[in-house]
Amino acid sequence: MSRGFFLVLEGPEGAGKTSLAAALVAAMQSEGLDPVAVREPGGTGPAEHARQALLDPGSRLDPHTELLFVAAARAHLVQAIIRPALAEGKIVLSDRYDLSTLAYQGAGRGLPAETVARVNEVATQGLRPDLTLVLDVPPAVGRERQAAAGKARDRFEREDDGFHDRVAAAYQAATGPAVRHLDGTASRPEVLAAAWAALAGARPDTFRPRR
Amino acid sequence: MSRGFFLVLEGPEGAGKTSLAAALVAAMQSEGLDPVAVREPGGTGPAEHARQALLDPGSRLDPHTELLFVAAARAHLVQAIIRPALAEGKIVLSDRYDLSTLAYQGAGRGLPAETVARVNEVATQGLRPDLTLVLDVPPAVGRERQAAAGKARDRFEREDDGFHDRVAAAYQAATGPAVRHLDGTASRPEVLAAAWAALAGARPDTFRPRR
Repeated sequence: MSRGFFLVLEGPEGAGKTSLAAALVAAMQSEGLDPVAVREPGGTGPAEHARQALLDPGSRLDPHTELLFVAAARAHLVQAIIRPALAEGKIVLSDRYDLSTLAYQGAGRGLPAETVARVNEVATQGLRPDLTLVLDVPPAVGRERQAAAGKARDRFEREDDGFHDRVAAAYQAATGPAVRHLDGTASRPEVLAAAWAALAGARPDTFRPRR
Repeated sequence: MSRGFFLVLEGPEGAGKTSLAAALVAAMQSEGLDPVAVREPGGTGPAEHARQALLDPGSRLDPHTELLFVAAARAHLVQAIIRPALAEGKIVLSDRYDLSTLAYQGAGRGLPAETVARVNEVATQGLRPDLTLVLDVPPAVGRERQAAAGKARDRFEREDDGFHDRVAAAYQAATGPAVRHLDGTASRPEVLAAAWAALAGARPDTFRPRR
């Protein structure tokens, strides 16, 4: 049984995470891999309760309350889905994880990074991604894509430009031994190729060079 | 405008908190006071989402996940109901608060007290009760009362005797400058009288001696 691999996609609104997640799942499946794809917040019954509290435009949550709901949803996703899948040697692909909390609740809402880190630690119990891919896009590009998509906007998408500028800046500044940045303004095939190259660099025996 | 007063009722299952809360609200109203009564977890839209995640017997929550859902519910109750009411000079009576987390998630589930305290601090942002009344009952008495009530049991009520013994022991050991213990095995009028005496001791200009 191969080791599990925990891949996280991060980036501001309109960065293309959802498209890349779908493309990566398809690419992995075409390579005979069987990834488990999840999306934060949500993915389990209890976490979906937290998602409703978080995304409902009628919810008025102060930053600390928001942080705790995000963390509660993450804790259950880790416990119920991510850890068991990794323990079975599976690849887990998560659309958002702890870096989202630093960007949105830390930089966006202004909570101290130490508070965010402590609560993240309770939620994740030390489970770190093997690779975090950050899709960088200028905030204006993200906004244009959101507007073009034309769907109903949730609590986060309704925030003002200053909030989204702080979130995007936090993502651009994110560093770490397992963090890689991708140009989110590139074409979808280019982004997929860059993401796959990063995977191949991180775990070549699992993610073989394609084509 | 008078100062607000934050009263918390605590105790294990079957201690009589709900009966005492109703009796205290009636007694306060008969004194011309207008208390705001709340119950944890829940009391707001987002907090009720957390409550569903917490109490559903189908939810399997590990201790850290449970802690974060409890904290998220508390954070929103504090933010949306308790702080605004206290700021208006009102009396707030809460059925459970942070001591419940030390008893249930700390002693009951075995989480480190420091972890519980840190997450409580994020949730409450330093809001301390003016008075916490702990209803002490031997676990066997609490169990008998629960069985006699005959209602469907939630996730906590279904826990084994060892869990409830640890919770009850934690409550019995609870101390603090604003913590008072009441004999939960006494008659309802006796418990009400003892609770009122404690209120009168804490804030005599608001809670005048009765009869």
